[in-house]
Amino acid sequence: MQDFLIRERDLAFLLHDHLGIARLADRPRFAGQGRETWDAVIGTARRIAAEKFRPHNRASDLDEPRIENGKIVVHPDIGPAIAAFSEAGFAAAHHDEAVGGMQLPWVVTQAAFANFQAANLSTVAYPFLTIAAGNLIAAHGSESQKERFLAPLTDGRFFGTMMLSEPHAGSSLSDVRTLAKPQEDGAWSLTGTKMWISGGEHEMAENIVHLVLARTPDAPPGVKGLSLFLVPRYRLDADGNPGRENGVVLAGLNHKMGYRGTVNTVINLGEGAPCIGELIGERNRGLTYMFHMMNEARIGVGSGAVALAYTGYLHSLDYARTRPQGRHPDGKDATSPQIPLIEHADIRRMLLLQKAVAEGGLALCLGAALLVDDQRTHSDEAVRRDAGLLLDFLTPVIKSFLSDRALEANDAAIQIHGGAGYTRDFPVEQFWRDNRLNPIHEGANGIQAIDLMGRKLGQADGRSFALFRGGIAETAAAAKSVTTLRPLAEELEAVSDRFASLAETILGRLAEDPRRTLANAAAFMDAAGYLALARVWLAQALTAERLLADGAGDGAFLTGKIETCRFVFAWLLPRAGPLLTLLESGDDTVFRMPGESF
Amino acid sequence: MQDFLIRERDLAFLLHDHLGIARLADRPRFAGQGRETWDAVIGTARRIAAEKFRPHNRASDLDEPRIENGKIVVHPDIGPAIAAFSEAGFAAAHHDEAVGGMQLPWVVTQAAFANFQAANLSTVAYPFLTIAAGNLIAAHGSESQKERFLAPLTDGRFFGTMMLSEPHAGSSLSDVRTLAKPQEDGAWSLTGTKMWISGGEHEMAENIVHLVLARTPDAPPGVKGLSLFLVPRYRLDADGNPGRENGVVLAGLNHKMGYRGTVNTVINLGEGAPCIGELIGERNRGLTYMFHMMNEARIGVGSGAVALAYTGYLHSLDYARTRPQGRHPDGKDATSPQIPLIEHADIRRMLLLQKAVAEGGLALCLGAALLVDDQRTHSDEAVRRDAGLLLDFLTPVIKSFLSDRALEANDAAIQIHGGAGYTRDFPVEQFWRDNRLNPIHEGANGIQAIDLMGRKLGQADGRSFALFRGGIAETAAAAKSVTTLRPLAEELEAVSDRFASLAETILGRLAEDPRRTLANAAAFMDAAGYLALARVWLAQALTAERLLADGAGDGAFLTGKIETCRFVFAWLLPRAGPLLTLLESGDDTVFRMPGESF
Repeated sequence: MQDFLIRERDLAFLLHDHLGIARLADRPRFAGQGRETWDAVIGTARRIAAEKFRPHNRASDLDEPRIENGKIVVHPDIGPAIAAFSEAGFAAAHHDEAVGGMQLPWVVTQAAFANFQAANLSTVAYPFLTIAAGNLIAAHGSESQKERFLAPLTDGRFFGTMMLSEPHAGSSLSDVRTLAKPQEDGAWSLTGTKMWISGGEHEMAENIVHLVLARTPDAPPGVKGLSLFLVPRYRLDADGNPGRENGVVLAGLNHKMGYRGTVNTVINLGEGAPCIGELIGERNRGLTYMFHMMNEARIGVGSGAVALAYTGYLHSLDYARTRPQGRHPDGKDATSPQIPLIEHADIRRMLLLQKAVAEGGLALCLGAALLVDDQRTHSDEAVRRDAGLLLDFLTPVIKSFLSDRALEANDAAIQIHGGAGYTRDFPVEQFWRDNRLNPIHEGANGIQAIDLMGRKLGQADGRSFALFRGGIAETAAAAKSVTTLRPLAEELEAVSDRFASLAETILGRLAEDPRRTLANAAAFMDAAGYLALARVWLAQALTAERLLADGAGDGAFLTGKIETCRFVFAWLLPRAGPLLTLLESGDDTVFRMPGESF
Repeated sequence: MQDFLIRERDLAFLLHDHLGIARLADRPRFAGQGRETWDAVIGTARRIAAEKFRPHNRASDLDEPRIENGKIVVHPDIGPAIAAFSEAGFAAAHHDEAVGGMQLPWVVTQAAFANFQAANLSTVAYPFLTIAAGNLIAAHGSESQKERFLAPLTDGRFFGTMMLSEPHAGSSLSDVRTLAKPQEDGAWSLTGTKMWISGGEHEMAENIVHLVLARTPDAPPGVKGLSLFLVPRYRLDADGNPGRENGVVLAGLNHKMGYRGTVNTVINLGEGAPCIGELIGERNRGLTYMFHMMNEARIGVGSGAVALAYTGYLHSLDYARTRPQGRHPDGKDATSPQIPLIEHADIRRMLLLQKAVAEGGLALCLGAALLVDDQRTHSDEAVRRDAGLLLDFLTPVIKSFLSDRALEANDAAIQIHGGAGYTRDFPVEQFWRDNRLNPIHEGANGIQAIDLMGRKLGQADGRSFALFRGGIAETAAAAKSVTTLRPLAEELEAVSDRFASLAETILGRLAEDPRRTLANAAAFMDAAGYLALARVWLAQALTAERLLADGAGDGAFLTGKIETCRFVFAWLLPRAGPLLTLLESGDDTVFRMPGESF
C-alpha cells in the first residue's frame, strides 16, 4: 500500500545524483559511513513514519489537546510514536558517537526527517523542538549543563521547547519582559508569561526543558538585554532525575485551526512557586544563542511545509490517476467512458505546480542541510565560512518563500479532489490547514523578508549574496552545455543579472531611506525565492539529462524532472518579472498609503 | 460597535457615484423608487445581518450539522435568522409586486445581500438557493408550477435546492444517470443518487423544493439528454400544503472543512417509496434551464467570496489599528512605545491587497448585478442583449478569479493577526476555511477557465469579448483626461491591447488544436481577471478624482480609493504580464507532460 511519504526514487536522485553526498564519506567524522548506511537510516525512518506517525495524523487533528484535571491530554498515539522515534536513535542521529549518537551527516538526518514531517507534522514537532534544544545546549551550554541535560534530551526522556513570545510581544522580541533575578546560589528566579509555546506542557516526557528568553534586572532595553535561561519543568535532583515542580504553570491552551497534535500553550513562570533557571552562556547574549535554535527551526519550518506539499502532491496524484471524470474538451462523446482526471490538462497544471514546489523545495532544504554539514565538517576553513554565509541568505527564503508556495501547492491538492478535497474523507484539507501555520511561526514571513533585504543582502560585505548569485551562475553555465537546456540557462542568467543589478540599487537606497525601501521587502523575497527555485530545478534537469545520456535508468522519472523544470521556467520564474519591475521603479504605494484611508 | 459588514460609505460610493444606479428610477418597473427606498432596504438588510446572522457564525461552524434519529439537526440560530430574512421580504425583494415582491432592482438586492454574506455565508446559502430556485421556476415553470410553488418559496415556507452532481459525476454533468420514468398521470418517477446537495435535507422549512437534473428513458446521451424536474420533499396536497413523503431519502452528510452551517447531503431519490417529480419546461432542455440558476449561483459564489474578503479586511484592519507590535526598521529604540501594526509597511501591503480584492470585487459583482437589471429592464433591446452578452463573459471571471483572489485576501487577514489569526479566538481563520469552497462549487475554477476561453471568448461572433474590451477602453479614455491617472490609463490600454491581440491568436489556435490551446486556460482566466479588476479600480479612482475636484466630501476615503487603484496597478495588474507571455508563446509544457512522469 502506498504510504504517501517522500518517494524513494526521488530522494535517491536528490541526495546522490543531484547533491552528490557520497563525498561526505571522505570526512573523518563520517568515516565508515556511506550510501548503504544512510539509505538504511532513511528506510528505518520511513518505516517508523508509516507505521507510527501517519496512522494518527487525522485522529490527533480531530482530538485536539485539552486540559483535564489541570493536566494536558494529547491524543494517545502521539507519545508512542515519539518513543519509537527516540528508540530508533533519531533524536541523537547527528550527535557524536561518544554521547550515544550516530554521528550522521545533517543532510541524512533531514532526509530521514522529511518522512516524519510528511507523515505527521504535529507529532514530529515535539522531537523537532527537543533536538533543536539539545543542539543549542550542545553549542552554548556549560559542561555541567551538557552532562545533565544532553543525554535525556537525546534518548527521549526529556523534551525541549523554546520560549520567546509573550502576550504583548510576538514578533517584537525587543519587548520581552520576563524577568530573571539572580539568587544567592548563582541560579536565577524567573517571573513572566510566555505565549505560543509549542509542546509547553504535557505528560509525555519525564521532564520538559524550556529555553527561555528573559531579562536580568540590570539589562539594557531591547534585544541586547535578553539572556537565555534553561528552565526545567521539574528541577533535577542530586541524581539528575526530575524532582519537584519548578513554578512552570500552565495558564491556557491556544485552539488552532490546524497543526493540532502539537499542544500550544500559555505558560506562567514563577506563579505560586519560584521558577528557577540556569543562565546559558553569558548574560545579554541570549538572542544570539537563541538564533542557533531559531535558524534551525526556520529551515525546519520550510522543510515541514515542503513535506506537506509533497504528501499532498502524492495524494492528489493518486486521486487524479484513479478518479474518472469528464472527457477532453474536443471529445465530448458521452457514450465513451470518462477519462481519469490526470488526462485533463488543468489537472496536470496543478500537479506540476505541486511537483515543482514539493520536489524543488525538498531539494532546496536538503541543499541547505548539506551546507550545515559543510559548515561543520568541511576541511577547508574558507569553505566552512562560505557555507555559513550562504546558509544565512537562504534561511529566510526557505522559511518564507517555501511556506507560501507549499500552501499554494496544498491548495492545488484540494482543488484536484474537487468537493471531496473539501471534506474530512481525504487528508488534503488538513494538510492545507496544518500548513497555514508555517508562514506565521518562527518569525512571520514579512519579518523574514525584511531580514533578507535589510540584513542578509549586505551581510559580510555582500559575500552571502555573492555566494547565492555564484551558485546560480555556476548552474547556468553548466546547463548551457546541454542544447535543450541552453535557453533556460540564459533565462536564469538574465533574471539573476537583473536581480543583482537591482540589489546594488537597493543597497544604496537602504542607506538613504531604509523605511521606504524595506516597504517592498515582500517583493524582494519572492523574487529571490523564484530564482532559487528555478536554479534548483535547472540543476535537477541537468542531472537528469546527464543520467539519460549515460543511459542510466528510469526514463519516465528523469523526463518528469526535465519537464517540471520547463514548467518552472514557463509558469513560476516569470512571476519574478513584475516583482523586479516594481522594485526597480521604487514604487512607494505601500509606504505612502495613509492609515486613515483604509 | 463595529459590525464588520459592508461599509455604508463604500456602498454608497459604489452604487451611486461609481455605478450611478439613480438612472434605474426612470424605468417603469422601478417607478416611485429611488435612493431613499434603496438605502432603507440596504439598511434593513444590514441590521438583520448584524442582529440575526453574524452572531451565530462561529457557533454554527463549531456545531456542524448532524443526524439525530434520522433527521438533520442544524444549529438552532440558523432557522430564526432565515425567518427574519424572509419576514423582511428579502426572499421576494426583486419579484413583482403582484406576487408580493418589492420589485427592487437586482443590483439593490445584491448590495443588501452582500451584508448577509459578510455576516454569515453558510446561513445565507439557504435563502440564496431558495431565491435561485424561485427565479428558475418563475422563468421556466408552467403557470401551475408558479402558482403552487412561487409564493411559498418567496415567503419562506418552502426552501429550494439544486440537484446536479452524482457520486460518479461531479463536474461531468454529461454522465448524470438519475432516471425519470413517465407515469400514466403525466408525472415522473425518479430514481438515483444525488451528491453534494447543499440544503438537501433539514427541518427548517415546511417543504424543500429540489430542482433535479435527470434523464428520461429515451433521452440521448450526454447533456443534451438531461431534463429538469421539480421534486418536492413532501408532495403537495389538494390545498397546496405539504402532504406525504416523496421518496427523497437522506443517505448521508458530507463533513466539510468550512461553510459548515450549510448542511451538505447525499440524497437517494426513489428509495423505499416512489419519488414523484414534475417536468419543468421541455424534455432534454434541462441543462439550459439549470444554467439560469447556475449563472445566478456563479455570480453568487463570486460575491460571497468577496463578502468574506470584505469582512476579513475589516477585521484585520481593526486588529492592525489596535494591536501595538514592534517599531519601524529604522527606529529601534526599545524604550519607545510599540507602534500599531498598521504603521508597518508590510501590514499595509496586506491591507491594500485585501482592500483591492474586497472593494474592487464588490464593485465587479454589483456591476454584474446592474447588467442583470439592464438585461431585464432597459428600454433598448440592443442594450438588453449586450448586457446579457457581457454578463456571460464576466460570469466565469467573477466566479473563479474573484474566489481565488478572495482566498488570497483572507490569507492576508490571517497573516496580519499573526498567531492569533490561526486560532479560534478570531474569525479570520474561519473566513479562510469557508471561502475555500468557492473555487470548487458551482463549477470548479478550471472548468470556468475552459468556459471563458473556449466558449465565451468567441461567443456571438466575439461580441461578448468586444463588450468587455469596450468597457476597458471607455474607462481608459475617460481616465486619460485626469493627469494623475493618465499613466495608469495608458498601462491599462496597453495590457488590454495585448490581451485582444492574443485573443485573436487564440481563436485561431482553438479552431486548429483546441485541446492544446485550452491546456493554458487558467492563465487566460487570470489575465482577464486582472484586467477586469484594474479597470474597475481605475473607474473608481476616476470617480474619486471627480468628487475631490468637486470638493464633494470625505478626502481620506476618496484618497484611499485612488491609492488602492495605484496599488492594483503596481502589484496586481502586472501579474498579467507573464501570463500573457506564456499564452502568446503557446507553451505546451502542461499539455505535454506525460502522465507516468509525475
